[in-house]
Amino acid sequence: MQQEFRRILAKFGFDAKKAEQCAGIFTANSLDGVYSHGVNRFARFIQSVKDGHIKPDAEPEKKHSSGALEQWDGGFGPGPLNAVFCTERAMELSTEYGIGCVAIGRTNHWMRAGYYGWKAAKAGFVLIAWTNTNANMPAWSAVDCRLGNNPIVLAVPYENEAIVLDIAMSQFAYGTLEVYQLGGRELPLAGGYDANGNLTTNPATILKTERILPMGYWKGSGMALLLDILSTILSGGLSTRQITDRGSEHGLSQVFIAANISSLGNQHIIPKTINDIIQDYLSSKPASEATEVRYPGERILRIRKENSESGIPVNQLVWEEIRGL
Amino acid sequence: MQQEFRRILAKFGFDAKKAEQCAGIFTANSLDGVYSHGVNRFARFIQSVKDGHIKPDAEPEKKHSSGALEQWDGGFGPGPLNAVFCTERAMELSTEYGIGCVAIGRTNHWMRAGYYGWKAAKAGFVLIAWTNTNANMPAWSAVDCRLGNNPIVLAVPYENEAIVLDIAMSQFAYGTLEVYQLGGRELPLAGGYDANGNLTTNPATILKTERILPMGYWKGSGMALLLDILSTILSGGLSTRQITDRGSEHGLSQVFIAANISSLGNQHIIPKTINDIIQDYLSSKPASEATEVRYPGERILRIRKENSESGIPVNQLVWEEIRGL
Repeated sequence: MQQEFRRILAKFGFDAKKAEQCAGIFTANSLDGVYSHGVNRFARFIQSVKDGHIKPDAEPEKKHSSGALEQWDGGFGPGPLNAVFCTERAMELSTEYGIGCVAIGRTNHWMRAGYYGWKAAKAGFVLIAWTNTNANMPAWSAVDCRLGNNPIVLAVPYENEAIVLDIAMSQFAYGTLEVYQLGGRELPLAGGYDANGNLTTNPATILKTERILPMGYWKGSGMALLLDILSTILSGGLSTRQITDRGSEHGLSQVFIAANISSLGNQHIIPKTINDIIQDYLSSKPASEATEVRYPGERILRIRKENSESGIPVNQLVWEEIRGL
Repeated sequence: MQQEFRRILAKFGFDAKKAEQCAGIFTANSLDGVYSHGVNRFARFIQSVKDGHIKPDAEPEKKHSSGALEQWDGGFGPGPLNAVFCTERAMELSTEYGIGCVAIGRTNHWMRAGYYGWKAAKAGFVLIAWTNTNANMPAWSAVDCRLGNNPIVLAVPYENEAIVLDIAMSQFAYGTLEVYQLGGRELPLAGGYDANGNLTTNPATILKTERILPMGYWKGSGMALLLDILSTILSGGLSTRQITDRGSEHGLSQVFIAANISSLGNQHIIPKTINDIIQDYLSSKPASEATEVRYPGERILRIRKENSESGIPVNQLVWEEIRGL
């Protein structure tokens, strides 16, 4: 898979190093079971390159530095490459200053927030990072989409792996609604509104009204607004409104905050501290015999192992489209 | 109100300056309509002082510095005073380094997250701060409380005021459930589970099962877990598990991250950028004529104005208890 991605990226203007790195990210996301932002998204990514929305040869450029806080211009470069760069730069800054913040404007979709969380946390750092998106979610008590679902990742090291929370501000992703619709199933919980303004678990109805529900109602709505403001002002880039006005989703604003916990006074007991919290959490009494209490990232580890052993499952049509690129 | 609080705080060991400051915070929270963490909580705060859980004369002490990231020991001092100190210290660090992070362990309940957000944002800073709490919420798909509701505040300047999102990780606060129960009303949305494990809007039922709902189900649950881990490891303080084991809620861990946006390259357009985002947000089409789309903090401004003009409404019994202290 990675070879094939690399071949295509090289064909579309990525130099050898960038093609290798970008192919690696799409493959890793697929290996982790996040197909929607891995193999299933690859052809669309290439289309954005063809459309000129993603510029393969753009390099991030520093616009401003205040020490531990830097502003970068993404030059409409490949989102995953810019995001890896910012993650590493935030880690560097945090190594120097304890905490480091890199805000980048005019970048592109980073695909999967979790990738950067795993990267930083496995290297021993804390990472908090978020992105804005185009408008795809109504504010609480509104019907038209003026907020992005603005995914955020919070990650900490855990044993040789990581605890990685990767969440968008909508209760369900559009991709999830489509999967339920295709399967003819109802959502497990209300995910949006019907035409009469009532909450519904019917995915087709929600896809029609486009009134998806913010996670926690007013809470996710408020957080989406603040994450957009923060990424826009810290990066000096484009807001959800401005991105939406450009038509297709490009030119996003993102923030990466890393903390260097290996420099702290309590560094030696941090692994035990995290382990104690997780063990207590996992000792929760499940609501039923059929349910399991899992920490964020636990499921990813299982899928990664499974896919490493048995191969990454790929839809035949998706793969044929990629082979033809 | 502030004079009365000051008198009582002085009587219970707060020096003149601390009594003034602490009385000011309780009064400001009441003025803003957050009575649950203002006047209605004051007697309980004094009880914690009497019990020795809050030490009026404790001063925060620096344990470790990595430059822009500092660890402080709260010495079980008054939560609101320690939190103001950390907010100001994070602002100072961000003035020097662009971004600043202060983590404090062994502090106490800060009362209202929003207070520190308003403080920093009105001074022109961005603030992200959170606290852990004792265990008061079950993890997603669990029945017993092993997570805190760990409130977080995100704040940015807006005109001469601020946009302040102040949210706990539970969908509803216990205080809110009690208010609905007293009024004999159902919650507007499911807030927890009944004894059969079904979601319910009945406040009395939820208060009985103690199965309150994390905001956004698995999302708020995951975020509560990560916020606890982050505040515990960054501060070197106590986790939700450890705080809960102490019996009464004291010795919390908190994180304060400030960003100095007035040092950024785009500083001059930031007010317009924020205003443009808010105006677009407020132009959302409301779901019905009866609903209104508001930004986080907007309602507070109205209540503050109303209470400034007409006085702070106080329950007679609450006030008599305070007068008797």
